[in-house]
Amino acid sequence: MSHSPSPVQVILRKRSGEAHPPGEIEAFIEGFVDGSVTDYQMTAWMMAVLFQGMSRQETARLTRAMIASGHSLPAWAEGPPVIDKHSTGGIGDKVSLIVAPLAAASGLRVPMISGRSLGHTGGTLDKLEAIPGYRVDQAPAGFRAIVERVGVSISGASNDLVPADRRMYALRDVSGIIESPPLIVSSILSKKAAARLDGLVLDVKVGSGGFMPTQGKAEELARMLCTAGSDLGMKTEVILSGMDEPLGRTVGNALEVAEAIDVLKKQNPDPRLTELCLEIAAAMLRVGGESDAKSRRRVEEGWSSGRGLERFAAMIQEHGGDPRVTEDPSRLPRAASTRKVEAREDGWIQSVDARAVGDLVVDLGGGRRRAEDRIDPRVGIEFFCATGAQVKAGQPLAEIHLPETGSAEEFEERLQESIRIDSEPPSRGAIILGRVRST
Amino acid sequence: MSHSPSPVQVILRKRSGEAHPPGEIEAFIEGFVDGSVTDYQMTAWMMAVLFQGMSRQETARLTRAMIASGHSLPAWAEGPPVIDKHSTGGIGDKVSLIVAPLAAASGLRVPMISGRSLGHTGGTLDKLEAIPGYRVDQAPAGFRAIVERVGVSISGASNDLVPADRRMYALRDVSGIIESPPLIVSSILSKKAAARLDGLVLDVKVGSGGFMPTQGKAEELARMLCTAGSDLGMKTEVILSGMDEPLGRTVGNALEVAEAIDVLKKQNPDPRLTELCLEIAAAMLRVGGESDAKSRRRVEEGWSSGRGLERFAAMIQEHGGDPRVTEDPSRLPRAASTRKVEAREDGWIQSVDARAVGDLVVDLGGGRRRAEDRIDPRVGIEFFCATGAQVKAGQPLAEIHLPETGSAEEFEERLQESIRIDSEPPSRGAIILGRVRST
Repeated sequence: MSHSPSPVQVILRKRSGEAHPPGEIEAFIEGFVDGSVTDYQMTAWMMAVLFQGMSRQETARLTRAMIASGHSLPAWAEGPPVIDKHSTGGIGDKVSLIVAPLAAASGLRVPMISGRSLGHTGGTLDKLEAIPGYRVDQAPAGFRAIVERVGVSISGASNDLVPADRRMYALRDVSGIIESPPLIVSSILSKKAAARLDGLVLDVKVGSGGFMPTQGKAEELARMLCTAGSDLGMKTEVILSGMDEPLGRTVGNALEVAEAIDVLKKQNPDPRLTELCLEIAAAMLRVGGESDAKSRRRVEEGWSSGRGLERFAAMIQEHGGDPRVTEDPSRLPRAASTRKVEAREDGWIQSVDARAVGDLVVDLGGGRRRAEDRIDPRVGIEFFCATGAQVKAGQPLAEIHLPETGSAEEFEERLQESIRIDSEPPSRGAIILGRVRST
Repeated sequence: MSHSPSPVQVILRKRSGEAHPPGEIEAFIEGFVDGSVTDYQMTAWMMAVLFQGMSRQETARLTRAMIASGHSLPAWAEGPPVIDKHSTGGIGDKVSLIVAPLAAASGLRVPMISGRSLGHTGGTLDKLEAIPGYRVDQAPAGFRAIVERVGVSISGASNDLVPADRRMYALRDVSGIIESPPLIVSSILSKKAAARLDGLVLDVKVGSGGFMPTQGKAEELARMLCTAGSDLGMKTEVILSGMDEPLGRTVGNALEVAEAIDVLKKQNPDPRLTELCLEIAAAMLRVGGESDAKSRRRVEEGWSSGRGLERFAAMIQEHGGDPRVTEDPSRLPRAASTRKVEAREDGWIQSVDARAVGDLVVDLGGGRRRAEDRIDPRVGIEFFCATGAQVKAGQPLAEIHLPETGSAEEFEERLQESIRIDSEPPSRGAIILGRVRST
């Protein structure tokens, strides 16, 4: 019995708060993959994990077992450090589009396996698909070849990279089992470790529009991520960043690609978005072995020289996309009509509710409620003012890029409700809320 | 959203420890029955219930929603009180076979819907099927007619009596979600309330071989059962009984039927088993409206007069079985070979491990590991001495009724290990450990 416990015995062990002995989690995940552990048994176990937690050793064993469920990428050839970045997802988060080419321009290899949108947060792959011709479905060999040629590729995961995670995540999503730190950690890190990274930077969003509601919870998750990353042989750094308001000036797929290009070109970039991107790219250099002192400077050099934008254009070309969008963003798809949203009173913008904006963009057609929903790349919101700005009644606050159908008045009303104007200037937190590194 | 929350919202509500508002549990159970709530979502919710509990109101709403998933029996005609008895299951528990006819002989109508064995505890239906010809699968109309004619029927549930419970129990069984008091209560009481009982007596087993390991936990469950039974319009009494040793002298299907007949005939009945049966039958009369003072006396009269045995024979005949087994137990199937087990030392029997004996009988073929396993009615164990008896080395302790295959030596060794003999007489607890009644 101790050698091969039944699924129900494994569930009872976790339910009662005991730790799984070595081999038990591994057998359970293997059984899930081969069908001898059912979906509902996996769900029962994950719910028990949510209530009872898992030790560092259990989390590492779970992550390795998930990796073993599929085919990892082959080892990388000798060369620059192989570093990736992952975000827990936020509204208007186009950071990956900016930092991946910036990090490549600074000498790293960046094999970024990314995901699609679900719920109110956008997906990097959906954003890239707004670029005419861009193919996110690269086979592992092609993906590797692009990284070796131009230093960076952002692609979707192949079906056989950590299939256990794909199925476990789908169950968690519809069974109320998302917010379990050990399950979050194993889900994120299994895919990253299967790509055989040397190092990893994680952007954990804190606040009403982010993944973790409080900084305390976020720091706890950050420490687990760093420890577990280190246990898997990846140098790991976590940036905690604020997500009470949308990140940058745009929310929506084509609009965010255009904004990313503006940032790479240093064309009036949003300061908070810029700061976060430069910090994350610098952290990627740090986990790749660069010193604290030089890492930020090297990133800024790559940015100012235009090499970041070049890497972005080269990556688009390698993926079958039209690289001319980097010179001429009007080549991106655009909504047929827009609606201006003006301030209704004088005052200071107190807050912009990130979650409400995310939900609105989903309803415009820019995100998914269900995995099978189709996305309209053109729709979204462009903000002209951010939290803290002083505005006059009648001044344009934002523009909604509208879908073919739906009531422009209603969309405007919802956006108005998400922007709070008050008679006093607000206090606005910094974008970078903390850093945690593996030791 | 408040009107029709999604399955994941219902799960999140219970996960976070909130109570479900009226209508929410009902919609969730309806969704489970119609397929819009998946097995894994139901499992996730039940695991959350196990950790977070449910209020009295939630438990009542769940139970009613489960009843509404199927067809209840039609209301009973005017006549004697309609009373049933249910046990949480123990090793050698043939109490139903004895008390159902005794209660009918005392003037009650006893429509007993019973179950099959799973794991180490035996099922009443499996025991009755040891009687040649006995059919447990009565249609609701036939079941009612037997109860009206002879006062008692013990049958299996029809498929449309509380189908939600059947499916929920199957999920709980293989997902480690059995030991949740509100889920236990709703599972037991939904089936009993769907039979439109006036009253119900529950035998909750306490101890190593029983359902609840400690008396405190058992009393908590008993109070919940009484409250919930009362909320559903059934007068309810719970008897807490000890289950550290097998109940009575036999474990195994045909052997237990023979013992039940011996008890009904007053042929050297085991005193603890007899005491429990008379107390449960008296409690059935009490919840049917008889006074405390008279109920036990009426049961003893029905027993001594032989009317209990008559009811048992009549019920067997109505179910197509051979009633002559009540006069001649050699008509029951018997194992082809047996093996005597003798004391290896002088001393007192300290304990007989009920759970180990139950597992042994399952391995003899007398119980099921999985629902599809077939049962051999002939196998089992007959004890010649009980806990507390003084024995001499070489004295027969028990006889194993053997299956066609398997090592008699190994079976004997396992039985020897389950019987502990020591040099001092043990202290043995009473069979009746407590009573809880609905107020």
